[in-house]
Amino acid sequence: MGRPTRLVSDIDFDRDGKQVDWLGLPHSVTRSAYGRIMIPIACIKNGKGPTAFFMAGNHGDEYEGQIALAKLIRTLEPGEIQGRVIILPAANFPAAMDGARVSPIDGGNLNRSFPGDPDGTVTQQIAYYIDSELFPRADLFHDLHSGGGSLDYVPFASMHAGAGEELDRRCADALRAFAPDVALVWKLGQDTRYAPAAALHRGVPALGGEFGGTGSVNRKALAMVERGLRRHLMNMGIVEKPKDWAAAPPPRRVIVPGQGWFVYAPEPGLFEPAVDLGQTVKKGQLCGHVHFVDNPARAPVPCHFREEGIVICKRHFGRVERGDCVSHLAVDEPW
Amino acid sequence: MGRPTRLVSDIDFDRDGKQVDWLGLPHSVTRSAYGRIMIPIACIKNGKGPTAFFMAGNHGDEYEGQIALAKLIRTLEPGEIQGRVIILPAANFPAAMDGARVSPIDGGNLNRSFPGDPDGTVTQQIAYYIDSELFPRADLFHDLHSGGGSLDYVPFASMHAGAGEELDRRCADALRAFAPDVALVWKLGQDTRYAPAAALHRGVPALGGEFGGTGSVNRKALAMVERGLRRHLMNMGIVEKPKDWAAAPPPRRVIVPGQGWFVYAPEPGLFEPAVDLGQTVKKGQLCGHVHFVDNPARAPVPCHFREEGIVICKRHFGRVERGDCVSHLAVDEPW
Amino acid sequence: MGRPTRLVSDIDFDRDGKQVDWLGLPHSVTRSAYGRIMIPIACIKNGKGPTAFFMAGNHGDEYEGQIALAKLIRTLEPGEIQGRVIILPAANFPAAMDGARVSPIDGGNLNRSFPGDPDGTVTQQIAYYIDSELFPRADLFHDLHSGGGSLDYVPFASMHAGAGEELDRRCADALRAFAPDVALVWKLGQDTRYAPAAALHRGVPALGGEFGGTGSVNRKALAMVERGLRRHLMNMGIVEKPKDWAAAPPPRRVIVPGQGWFVYAPEPGLFEPAVDLGQTVKKGQLCGHVHFVDNPARAPVPCHFREEGIVICKRHFGRVERGDCVSHLAVDEPW
Amino acid sequence: MGRPTRLVSDIDFDRDGKQVDWLGLPHSVTRSAYGRIMIPIACIKNGKGPTAFFMAGNHGDEYEGQIALAKLIRTLEPGEIQGRVIILPAANFPAAMDGARVSPIDGGNLNRSFPGDPDGTVTQQIAYYIDSELFPRADLFHDLHSGGGSLDYVPFASMHAGAGEELDRRCADALRAFAPDVALVWKLGQDTRYAPAAALHRGVPALGGEFGGTGSVNRKALAMVERGLRRHLMNMGIVEKPKDWAAAPPPRRVIVPGQGWFVYAPEPGLFEPAVDLGQTVKKGQLCGHVHFVDNPARAPVPCHFREEGIVICKRHFGRVERGDCVSHLAVDEPW
Amino acid sequence: MGRPTRLVSDIDFDRDGKQVDWLGLPHSVTRSAYGRIMIPIACIKNGKGPTAFFMAGNHGDEYEGQIALAKLIRTLEPGEIQGRVIILPAANFPAAMDGARVSPIDGGNLNRSFPGDPDGTVTQQIAYYIDSELFPRADLFHDLHSGGGSLDYVPFASMHAGAGEELDRRCADALRAFAPDVALVWKLGQDTRYAPAAALHRGVPALGGEFGGTGSVNRKALAMVERGLRRHLMNMGIVEKPKDWAAAPPPRRVIVPGQGWFVYAPEPGLFEPAVDLGQTVKKGQLCGHVHFVDNPARAPVPCHFREEGIVICKRHFGRVERGDCVSHLAVDEPW
Amino acid sequence: MGRPTRLVSDIDFDRDGKQVDWLGLPHSVTRSAYGRIMIPIACIKNGKGPTAFFMAGNHGDEYEGQIALAKLIRTLEPGEIQGRVIILPAANFPAAMDGARVSPIDGGNLNRSFPGDPDGTVTQQIAYYIDSELFPRADLFHDLHSGGGSLDYVPFASMHAGAGEELDRRCADALRAFAPDVALVWKLGQDTRYAPAAALHRGVPALGGEFGGTGSVNRKALAMVERGLRRHLMNMGIVEKPKDWAAAPPPRRVIVPGQGWFVYAPEPGLFEPAVDLGQTVKKGQLCGHVHFVDNPARAPVPCHFREEGIVICKRHFGRVERGDCVSHLAVDEPW
Repeated sequence: MGRPTRLVSDIDFDRDGKQVDWLGLPHSVTRSAYGRIMIPIACIKNGKGPTAFFMAGNHGDEYEGQIALAKLIRTLEPGEIQGRVIILPAANFPAAMDGARVSPIDGGNLNRSFPGDPDGTVTQQIAYYIDSELFPRADLFHDLHSGGGSLDYVPFASMHAGAGEELDRRCADALRAFAPDVALVWKLGQDTRYAPAAALHRGVPALGGEFGGTGSVNRKALAMVERGLRRHLMNMGIVEKPKDWAAAPPPRRVIVPGQGWFVYAPEPGLFEPAVDLGQTVKKGQLCGHVHFVDNPARAPVPCHFREEGIVICKRHFGRVERGDCVSHLAVDEPW
Repeated sequence: MGRPTRLVSDIDFDRDGKQVDWLGLPHSVTRSAYGRIMIPIACIKNGKGPTAFFMAGNHGDEYEGQIALAKLIRTLEPGEIQGRVIILPAANFPAAMDGARVSPIDGGNLNRSFPGDPDGTVTQQIAYYIDSELFPRADLFHDLHSGGGSLDYVPFASMHAGAGEELDRRCADALRAFAPDVALVWKLGQDTRYAPAAALHRGVPALGGEFGGTGSVNRKALAMVERGLRRHLMNMGIVEKPKDWAAAPPPRRVIVPGQGWFVYAPEPGLFEPAVDLGQTVKKGQLCGHVHFVDNPARAPVPCHFREEGIVICKRHFGRVERGDCVSHLAVDEPW
Repeated sequence: MGRPTRLVSDIDFDRDGKQVDWLGLPHSVTRSAYGRIMIPIACIKNGKGPTAFFMAGNHGDEYEGQIALAKLIRTLEPGEIQGRVIILPAANFPAAMDGARVSPIDGGNLNRSFPGDPDGTVTQQIAYYIDSELFPRADLFHDLHSGGGSLDYVPFASMHAGAGEELDRRCADALRAFAPDVALVWKLGQDTRYAPAAALHRGVPALGGEFGGTGSVNRKALAMVERGLRRHLMNMGIVEKPKDWAAAPPPRRVIVPGQGWFVYAPEPGLFEPAVDLGQTVKKGQLCGHVHFVDNPARAPVPCHFREEGIVICKRHFGRVERGDCVSHLAVDEPW
Repeated sequence: MGRPTRLVSDIDFDRDGKQVDWLGLPHSVTRSAYGRIMIPIACIKNGKGPTAFFMAGNHGDEYEGQIALAKLIRTLEPGEIQGRVIILPAANFPAAMDGARVSPIDGGNLNRSFPGDPDGTVTQQIAYYIDSELFPRADLFHDLHSGGGSLDYVPFASMHAGAGEELDRRCADALRAFAPDVALVWKLGQDTRYAPAAALHRGVPALGGEFGGTGSVNRKALAMVERGLRRHLMNMGIVEKPKDWAAAPPPRRVIVPGQGWFVYAPEPGLFEPAVDLGQTVKKGQLCGHVHFVDNPARAPVPCHFREEGIVICKRHFGRVERGDCVSHLAVDEPW
Repeated sequence: MGRPTRLVSDIDFDRDGKQVDWLGLPHSVTRSAYGRIMIPIACIKNGKGPTAFFMAGNHGDEYEGQIALAKLIRTLEPGEIQGRVIILPAANFPAAMDGARVSPIDGGNLNRSFPGDPDGTVTQQIAYYIDSELFPRADLFHDLHSGGGSLDYVPFASMHAGAGEELDRRCADALRAFAPDVALVWKLGQDTRYAPAAALHRGVPALGGEFGGTGSVNRKALAMVERGLRRHLMNMGIVEKPKDWAAAPPPRRVIVPGQGWFVYAPEPGLFEPAVDLGQTVKKGQLCGHVHFVDNPARAPVPCHFREEGIVICKRHFGRVERGDCVSHLAVDEPW
Repeated sequence: MGRPTRLVSDIDFDRDGKQVDWLGLPHSVTRSAYGRIMIPIACIKNGKGPTAFFMAGNHGDEYEGQIALAKLIRTLEPGEIQGRVIILPAANFPAAMDGARVSPIDGGNLNRSFPGDPDGTVTQQIAYYIDSELFPRADLFHDLHSGGGSLDYVPFASMHAGAGEELDRRCADALRAFAPDVALVWKLGQDTRYAPAAALHRGVPALGGEFGGTGSVNRKALAMVERGLRRHLMNMGIVEKPKDWAAAPPPRRVIVPGQGWFVYAPEPGLFEPAVDLGQTVKKGQLCGHVHFVDNPARAPVPCHFREEGIVICKRHFGRVERGDCVSHLAVDEPW
């Protein structure tokens, strides 16, 4: 793990001021023997103080976080802050430029690639840089997702519980400070291939969240993210709290109890959903039908919810393959 | 134009009963020297009476019509009807199976391919069959679209005005019978590459419409389509009107006056819209910004509406190229 | 039709001797602005006499003819002949080098491209050269096919009947001279996109035939082709008949009465055939089953022969799409 | 090696009855963020008794085993058996649906991927599941291959000798029970990337075999496989032996002594074979010629057998690259 | 020919001032149903006077003209001129953005596509716009080429002679005004698929030229182009001639007498040239060898010049296919 | 590291005479289940003496070395030498046949793949063979590069200093013997993924060098390589020195002090260089401009040299992405 990253940059994380620059990831290919993939990064710093590390573009087709962070980079000035803000607005940069979940270069899903590898694929090298260079500098990590092209979500922020009392407490504090409408608390598992889990493994409080989806830009969720990021800075003391600062009321707290709360397409075809996002459903309720437009005389195949809960996630695209997740539920579990 | 189609089928359009079968389009390729592309089609007939021809899947990533027609094929029985219903639920079949607007075989956009060519590309051969074999049999043609993956629409049904008094009247009658919330009336131009324009050119009353979009299935628009198709059959006398049949109140009538009511992305990047679908906007109002996540220090580039109207269409995907339509307006023009 | 071909060559068809050269088809692409596709051709000539034109590689994955003609080019010497032999051993050259039925450049099926177009796609330009430059020089045209990767055949030579009494007689004479085991007589239709039909349209006696298939090299069928080509030359008086020359006994004569003698896959899946090549089947007899290995609990779907006859053609690949031809029959019709 | 598989399934291998279900392999991609590759599997169980584990689709273009197992899944009923039968009919499922040897997702050759990796590529994850979850449950493993698209075989069943006296004996017993016409005995090497070698490494008797090839369905070899699988079940006591059960006569036993018994294409071109499958050849005998249809004046290049034996394997496709195996021999070595 | 172009633009060619805008070519695809390909164009006008129309990017991998025209657009001000300058700096825009000779959308070579088709492929639509909208407005057309990725040239400007005395005179006058070091005079043939030939067909004096090549930017040739374009404007009276204006000395005049002055690669392999660009060679002189690195024991195959002349063009890439042009000559023919 | 290579070959490195053969790398794919990638190799040996190991095609689009070694294989006879010469003229064979820097099979850059992996990707298996089988047999290793398609170089030979006094001395001696015009001395780093570094790690004196570039064949640099290789053999005593042998004058010695001597493209677009290869530049001097032909009104973006030195390397292709190296410098540092 002590191996050096191959990414190079002129960024000096210890320098005061606003630096908007790139991480250069050497990528030697036919069209450019000495080429670099240029991943945008910003560091805004003023004096001593805590470090907030905000990231988006972990999946390239999730846009609310990318836009919110691009705006924050332009609008946040060193003079306003005390401490440091590190912003990686398009972490899996090749995927972001492709408008795709995974990298067009190596097929890599950055959020299954932590802690990464400095000699691995492009995606693994990005993960390694984040894990070895950025997590150690952070007092808070927020990884801004949405559902991507294939899923739509009731917007929520999230944390993983189970990383120890101190980290749990700091995550919950940050989650409330962010002030989402809904807060989803995942149970931290063994799997540290995810960015927030990797950050927690490094001892860094880490949040996530799904702010919309469908490969589009959800205006309300974007506003929620922009407001929440400012609130993080105030809560951490990086930006001064306004006089009328008030703790937000605690968000609705939900969990996803297990795999039984997911529904998968039973056949390939066209999926007609029977429920809407945000709706409460009962055990055994119809989730939808797969229709066979190539063979319209064939009877549609239904699928049902196996548990009760709120439809927090729905598949977006009409066309499905067998095994595509068409919905998953969450259930209330108050704080 | 008297050249024969190369598509073959066992369907007998003059036979009573329900036939659900395929049109076989010979497609000789390496994996199948004597292969056929099998395009689903149904003919439901009982005795004498008018013929309704319903079509979907003109664009493969528009699903409401495909699902509505697949359901109609299974549920409509010859005993219920007097006359004939011809249903082509996935007209550009290769595109429909690919979940794409255009055909993966030849890149063909079926709705720019009329009147087609019996010796042309796969898409042109499909257009030719529809134009030469199906339009001549129809008393009404309804081509069911939605916005596809790239656009979202306020759901509406539509007609083209300008094909002559008689056709205009019959289209308007059918449009009201369908009972959409919104009716958009296009001005018929010279361009007969579109399916409805080609049908009108053949003297067949023709409707269109955009029932949702985004590459997903809009449950409300789907319900509107399913109800409207049944109302067509009643209005044409193919299905008996219920005792309590009442003409629907006339829908809101809108037009799109010209190219000035469209807005295009001024740069490639991430598009943050400033308005919502259905909103009324003023001339000069901000439509949105293009952000540059690859170079976040670069100032976002705005674009504005050049006319006033209702936002009837919005781009769905967050990522844009210069020249992508990001919105277009419609304006009220009462009947 | 008087437009000049764009193909260039140093071949002089009027020169005595053996010329083995190329037709250069200008193909201006990024990797070669002034590049040419080099299509091999040979002309072997000695004095006056008739011209035999032999062609293979009309489909690139049909190898018996390609090998037989490559061998003939090397072994036939001008001193042995009186007249002229023109040999095009790999007509759709890009397809032949790709081992595919159709051209990797334009997807073109040469045998659906006659009479071609001098300004069209690469495949259309090849067809045009053959049609405008080679057919007019020929007294006999033999286009050597086999089933390609997707089909297997009982090897046969063939002709199209219906081009007029004189041409029919000359084709039948050539067909018997070739001495195949089986001779299939097609009915000449309107469709002149096929090479033999185009040759007949030019007044040139034309044969075809399917000498094996499956994308492999059938040793017996190859021997039949090699012997038959030599017999053509003797029958035409280009090569001297041996003293013991005897007309071959007339081959078994079969026809394919119509589309009803073909069977197509009813579903996509794995096709288990129920019959062997060459077998005689009855009307209604089982042709095979489609199995669903992705969903093995689903019942296999059978398909049946709709007429009786000999299984002269079978699909080779185990995997099928709906609409793939899985077999076709021929029936005896004596001379 | 104690790491858990990521594949999920509702199958309970300890439950009596017939379960036909899927293994869900999480595959997070742009078109489906929470998608799963659904690999069919069946478990048929009744009470106590030994476990037979049958697998096909290790290579996707080898069909006899896939069809035989799909049929066995539908026809074998729990009431007929005592013990358990686990069936994986399309092990490298993406390859099987693609009709290709290797996976279209990661290029993986499942039969070079054992013992696999639970965090590796899709193919490595499949191998890991088989190795860690299915081999430990099996008393016999039979991996049903054929030559795939590129090779044709004299059908045979096979075992690897050298895994110890006890395993050798149990493999030989199973091989004879299966009753193939020919039995090939490989020498077990160091390479455990192959499925049968991996099973032996786990202490499980393991058979293989090549039941035809060419990417088609060999009806005789399929019948041999179907009969042999039933005989396995009888021999293991899972299905009751019929009263007239008789040990089959021992099959012809052959070996492949070494690399010297293989012949490779010396040049790229069209390969004309000089021998037939099943033929006995002498040392130095001509194996075939490579022809150059792009340059027919160039002399064909021959290749020869370097040892004597039976032509048990031949290349199927006519087109070759330098280094393609065009044939290999086997030699008799009686039991 | 009277059919309207489908390209739309806000450019008003009759308006004074500098307009830098785009031609929008409607391109309806899955990622953008109402998308447009945005082709840059500029019109700089002041009062009455002649119109110069300069074009580059006819082939996308030819850069000197593209850069020279981008610079001219930015630096030429309406106040400096009397008349009009129309500039199309990246005519085959998709090819230009791809750095390729031909369009990645339709494979179209714009310089083989005139006079185009308003309903054809993207490339044909571009040609049609140029032919029907821009040529009729021009008093001089200069199409700036270089050798592209595959060829290198001794930089020259060119004209086609044979379009009639008046046009020949005006072309020669413009050619001398441009003041290249070398002027190549082609003989105008029948083929009007080329841009300059199409312009001449419309009665517009037209020049061409190859200003370097190899897919790189030739600094000297770029300077020659920049100077020449300014000289065109002075010669036409659009820009005032400086007091010390002097006609340039006539350039060296060369011609390419015929196909015999071209040399093509005789085999695929690595091409080692035996001559340098600009060198004078004799008939029969060695042009180079093809080496076979896949089979290094095979003797290299030489090729020779069949005529004498100056090496004005050489293939750039080391790898060749049979039929690639490896060199062509020019010969002096004084004015 | 003791794992065996999977490559097979009939080459006997201990046998006297000239062997030109192939390394067969097993590559089991759909089109060839038992296929091998055939990598050309030659061994020329006579009696006892040192071993020179020459390699080219480490990157497939670098041709001078490939041609020089193909010629050496054909012309060097065992009778001329005392010792052994091992020649691998196209090391990354799939890349060489593709004319690309990296392998089309696995995207592998051979020069980032050492010491390789016998069970890894194709490229890793090649690296492993070189590292484990060829380096241990060599007394000198020379890896012949050039700039490939994307870069052009002032031709030079090179060594890495820092591998220990003895190796440094032997490398410097070989470098001078080779007699290039320019000698570049790199500082040996930690990174042993490069071929020369891997050889030094094995204790083998190793040279490199960039002999031209641009994807073409540089005739002068090729002559330098051919002469240098002969001089190596003389210097090592493998070929007898001619009577008039004289040590060449020491070449100009340069170094590249660090990353500050490289310049990268600041934006994507068309790059107009401001300097020529070989030119001496000052700190802060203009390196070039990026032009935006898609938006020609946008101001070009310049980039500058940050240090002074000689332009030893320039980007070749006109089109750049942000992060492409457009130039790097070297500075004199006498011996």
